[in-house]
Amino acid sequence: MHSDVPWEVWSRERQQRVEENLARTLADEPGRLGEAMRYSVLGGGKRVRPLLAYAAGEVAGADPARVDAPAASVELIHAYSLVHDDLPAMDNDTMRRGRPTSHVVFGEGLAILSGDALLTEAFALLSREPAEARTVSAEELNRRKLRTIAVVADAAGAAGMVGGQAIDLDAAAPGSASLDAAALREMHMRKTGALIVASAVSGAIMAGATESIADAIGRYGVEVGLAFQIVDDILDVEGASHELGKTAGKDAAANKPTYPSLFGIDRSRALAADGIARAERSLTDAGLAYGPLLQIAQWVVGRSH
Amino acid sequence: MHSDVPWEVWSRERQQRVEENLARTLADEPGRLGEAMRYSVLGGGKRVRPLLAYAAGEVAGADPARVDAPAASVELIHAYSLVHDDLPAMDNDTMRRGRPTSHVVFGEGLAILSGDALLTEAFALLSREPAEARTVSAEELNRRKLRTIAVVADAAGAAGMVGGQAIDLDAAAPGSASLDAAALREMHMRKTGALIVASAVSGAIMAGATESIADAIGRYGVEVGLAFQIVDDILDVEGASHELGKTAGKDAAANKPTYPSLFGIDRSRALAADGIARAERSLTDAGLAYGPLLQIAQWVVGRSH
Repeated sequence: MHSDVPWEVWSRERQQRVEENLARTLADEPGRLGEAMRYSVLGGGKRVRPLLAYAAGEVAGADPARVDAPAASVELIHAYSLVHDDLPAMDNDTMRRGRPTSHVVFGEGLAILSGDALLTEAFALLSREPAEARTVSAEELNRRKLRTIAVVADAAGAAGMVGGQAIDLDAAAPGSASLDAAALREMHMRKTGALIVASAVSGAIMAGATESIADAIGRYGVEVGLAFQIVDDILDVEGASHELGKTAGKDAAANKPTYPSLFGIDRSRALAADGIARAERSLTDAGLAYGPLLQIAQWVVGRSH
Repeated sequence: MHSDVPWEVWSRERQQRVEENLARTLADEPGRLGEAMRYSVLGGGKRVRPLLAYAAGEVAGADPARVDAPAASVELIHAYSLVHDDLPAMDNDTMRRGRPTSHVVFGEGLAILSGDALLTEAFALLSREPAEARTVSAEELNRRKLRTIAVVADAAGAAGMVGGQAIDLDAAAPGSASLDAAALREMHMRKTGALIVASAVSGAIMAGATESIADAIGRYGVEVGLAFQIVDDILDVEGASHELGKTAGKDAAANKPTYPSLFGIDRSRALAADGIARAERSLTDAGLAYGPLLQIAQWVVGRSH
């Protein structure tokens, strides 16, 4: 449970680990489709979701190798969601991570297909045999893998991320009634929160965590996920485009419901900090005050991009 | 292996079975996203892929209940691929199964999201506990489910269906060199064939078929899948739009590479018939001459829509 490794070292090692796994997974995808898949996944991104998967797996006793597949899979799903979200029919964003978005580079058709392929590859990866030396039976490992697939699919689909994007799309449409606080929270919980929760929980599942530990990690994930999106909203108002690597001020311009538009900046910041405090309490109460999990929570509220 | 039930009865029963499963799976999806998902899946389609899954499962000794999840999943994946394929950035089709396409009804953004949600739901479904009374151990069932997920994901992704669509998109682009026979076959094998093979093979896997039986069913699926697409190409040239339920003559208008454009109608028809003969031989040689599998093959070449 105790990590002697400084946060900078811990996080850099896991970021490199997932980067290598993602690069290996996508290395052989041929043609322009393969280029488009690699373009949107490799060489960018904070890898928050993989870090959560690793940290949750480790607090529950798993080696990083046990968590490699879910860590890479949730990042593939996150990357696909950005590609589709950026499309002209959705947010119509032309910059992402400091580079032109996929449809600007590859055209809309190939951008849509590359997102489809990344989502599909995420599940292929979760179903494959892990490279690790097995310390549990094949039967137990299969059981964990199927549970992970169920958790990730539910978080990514209509009940989770895609459902949240649909609410967002509907709310931003001209003439739509603005969302109240409860509806905004619901949207954020699904659009951003669900996959963040699934990232942490999948690490716990792969580690064979007890239900009560997985539940505590899930509650932590819910708070971290919501705080992450609140901070995202704040950064869209306050941040500079060059620092964000994407166009700032887009939310207000697109008439998007956000925490700052509903609560103002100060109150939004306080809500994010309250959430992170609750996230930390979930860990401490369950005896899971693992350095990396606490650090990820702190980073989420403190980040500037 | 022997089916006493007439083909019309057998196929109608399985079509109703998958229809009910699909309706139940999508019943609770809320809002416009749920409407869009149901619109593209329910009340239409020939359900060839589910029929293949059931027939292959049955020839290998499984009850239909054992094959319900893959049967519904491959249809969800097929439906999502049509929604994305019909988008303006892809084939730009406005009619499908006799009705306006999803993006015409729901807008492009929601059409993209509903396809994403259908693809994700397919994997959620494959990971869930089946409702059947178990006749094999939980461990064995989990092993089969994971293999099915791997087979379906590989067939649906960049190496299979999405990769084939990317080739198609590239080939139809202005100024592209036309595909030769080998490249056209490769495109069809991936775009249409891969998921058809996976449909049949997933039935065999869920039934616990031996490798040699699964291989024979796979070879049958390869031939059926290619013949299916050749006939699709022919129908696009010859068919009436009202019978097809979609716009006829689109391939030629879009400068799409097809079997008729490369070989002419008569030779294309002969190639499809040759393939079906090989499909039947794969079954007979392996002692798998099961009525429904043979009937599906016959239907594929004989169909008028």
